[in-house]
Amino acid sequence: MELKNLFNDEKGKIVMLVFDGLGGAPFGEKRMTELEAASIPNMDKLAKESALGLMVMTDYGIAPGSGPGHMALFGYDPLKTNVGRGVLEALGVGHTQERDELSARGNFATIDPESHVITDRRGGALTQERNKELCKKLNEKVRIEGYQVKFISGKEHRFVFILKGEGLEEELSETDPQVTGVPPPKVVALSEKAKKTADVVNRCIEGIFDALKDEYPQNAVLLRGFAKVPSIEPFGDRYNLKAAAIATYPMYKGIAKLVGMECLECGSTFEDQVKTLEANYDNFDFFFVHVKATDSYGHKGDFDGKVRVLEECDRLIPRFLALKPKVFVITGDHSTPCAVKEHSFHPVPVLIRADTAIPTGAQRFTEKDCAKGILGIFPGMKLMQMCLGYAGRLKKFGA
Amino acid sequence: MELKNLFNDEKGKIVMLVFDGLGGAPFGEKRMTELEAASIPNMDKLAKESALGLMVMTDYGIAPGSGPGHMALFGYDPLKTNVGRGVLEALGVGHTQERDELSARGNFATIDPESHVITDRRGGALTQERNKELCKKLNEKVRIEGYQVKFISGKEHRFVFILKGEGLEEELSETDPQVTGVPPPKVVALSEKAKKTADVVNRCIEGIFDALKDEYPQNAVLLRGFAKVPSIEPFGDRYNLKAAAIATYPMYKGIAKLVGMECLECGSTFEDQVKTLEANYDNFDFFFVHVKATDSYGHKGDFDGKVRVLEECDRLIPRFLALKPKVFVITGDHSTPCAVKEHSFHPVPVLIRADTAIPTGAQRFTEKDCAKGILGIFPGMKLMQMCLGYAGRLKKFGA
Repeated sequence: MELKNLFNDEKGKIVMLVFDGLGGAPFGEKRMTELEAASIPNMDKLAKESALGLMVMTDYGIAPGSGPGHMALFGYDPLKTNVGRGVLEALGVGHTQERDELSARGNFATIDPESHVITDRRGGALTQERNKELCKKLNEKVRIEGYQVKFISGKEHRFVFILKGEGLEEELSETDPQVTGVPPPKVVALSEKAKKTADVVNRCIEGIFDALKDEYPQNAVLLRGFAKVPSIEPFGDRYNLKAAAIATYPMYKGIAKLVGMECLECGSTFEDQVKTLEANYDNFDFFFVHVKATDSYGHKGDFDGKVRVLEECDRLIPRFLALKPKVFVITGDHSTPCAVKEHSFHPVPVLIRADTAIPTGAQRFTEKDCAKGILGIFPGMKLMQMCLGYAGRLKKFGA
Repeated sequence: MELKNLFNDEKGKIVMLVFDGLGGAPFGEKRMTELEAASIPNMDKLAKESALGLMVMTDYGIAPGSGPGHMALFGYDPLKTNVGRGVLEALGVGHTQERDELSARGNFATIDPESHVITDRRGGALTQERNKELCKKLNEKVRIEGYQVKFISGKEHRFVFILKGEGLEEELSETDPQVTGVPPPKVVALSEKAKKTADVVNRCIEGIFDALKDEYPQNAVLLRGFAKVPSIEPFGDRYNLKAAAIATYPMYKGIAKLVGMECLECGSTFEDQVKTLEANYDNFDFFFVHVKATDSYGHKGDFDGKVRVLEECDRLIPRFLALKPKVFVITGDHSTPCAVKEHSFHPVPVLIRADTAIPTGAQRFTEKDCAKGILGIFPGMKLMQMCLGYAGRLKKFGA
């Protein structure tokens, strides 16, 4: 379906509030989900008057990562739009990759100075400071004529490797053999056109090993997930929407930038985000507001923490409504049930408030109410199309 | 799925009652849909004992035109079966296009006699009589050796252009520039094989302009949506059903003919249609009964009107049941909520009454009851297959 051919002149605004890892599962003795346990009167009231449903973000039974989850939310087929590991890792440390950049996820590692075999794939327990110090050194020492090389410090033993220059390709083998006792393999080109890139990366690695030779037990690196930014039709063109992201975490700002949204400066609290929305409301057609804390508590298995975030955010829901968006959506990018402590496959609750939304007698905003909603259970990547429909922004298809 | 391989000898009949634009949305202060507001005891009773669901006719969030909506109902992929604008326009004025005909939607328009630029794309406000008079003149004057040319009067400034002959192709540019102040462009072939057709059409247009030169302000025409009939597997072969259409409007008779149904003569009221069904019940396996008025009132935003049509038709539902069809379906081709006054994307309520249909506790035939039905939310183009299933007309697939 080419949406382009269906655009009309309607200008109703769409606000999408995304609680990362929103969906839950029965937890503890009470066997309640986080949404069931939470006191969220404003969202419950919305559920009574909205269209409800559940979204399968990638495929049945499959837990999506943050990349695929958000790609689906933004209406890009998450199984076809490959946002490489390197790109996501770069986004996670705040680097939004350019089209002429190649990224990879790096590990500091230990090799035996004599035999050169890997003895520790994670280079001993290193502090954040030590990690930064090593990246600083690499940024100073590693030089490749005609290219720019960049090392960005990550958590624990991780860093992000960025190579910038003309004609770089991503079809490269990894240098992490996933085992110890063997030397780190060289990068091999997996396609004819990637040969030049493989040479350049191997020269980088030589430079890195040389720079680290006296830094035992961090005297080596392993590189994985070489990736260029995927070629993505810009969100604005795809939906005829001027779009803004109001997110506090680098990864989500990054994904939003990747699809072409403008990232608005906002503070760190949900109230800061709401203020940013209010201040910029007239200047955009679409807002992606991202709340990270629900997911973080889900990962920790901290049920009360996740419930508390939902309750705190619920108090500010009236400020979203006061802006009178044509379409107001509350949903998640995937489920992170405290019962699972990880992203799960559970379809994600979604609520669409709009003039022509048909309520189905729900009394609360919970997974089970959403399962009985007018939207049914549908592919997450269709949500944006639905939003355009509810906003009245599309002409009919065919005569 | 090749249904052909699954046909058995069962002969149970299927009756599909289609209320055009059936689905609604919350309207006015009461926030009820048309089905919710209507007093339709017979359909409600059926809902209690039937399989219910909602159908997505084309894609989520997308409002289907009548063409795609009916193609889906008849089980043809509406995104792949392109029934061109010209074909539908011809059907609308009662002309069922043949395989060797090319059709287009025409506007009478005004060009400046000196400069030849378009000054009015809709040729001044012309009466139905004047439109007919102009078409009559064109039918008399425009002659192309080896081809037949036909002009059929439409509403306001519209007419349908039909060119009949061997080897005509539809890949042609339009002659309506959508703006004034420029001369009408010639038709350009958009494919190599359409070149001959472009020449013929351009000669037609010369003939038309010549015939209209003294008819200011209707001294020009603009042609759009050149189309041949799509190549469609006949409905009867596809489903092993001898099929009849009982429709009162030319467009829907036409679509039924296009897929190979026999159109039965019937009067103009719903009761006439029911009588036609009764009189012909023994002679066919499948009946498509089409009610237009629900859609018409939907377009007008006349809530009471749409409700009244549903109520009036409801009284005759027992006569459908008295025929004891193996499968009785009530549905629509798309939603036309009075709240929207246009076709909308809202999934379409569907009720399938059959011996093996599983009820789900619904008390009424409404959108929200259908959302909780045993059929779930499914692609409209799968309805016919389901009907065959409920009719027991298909063998199992695989051993």
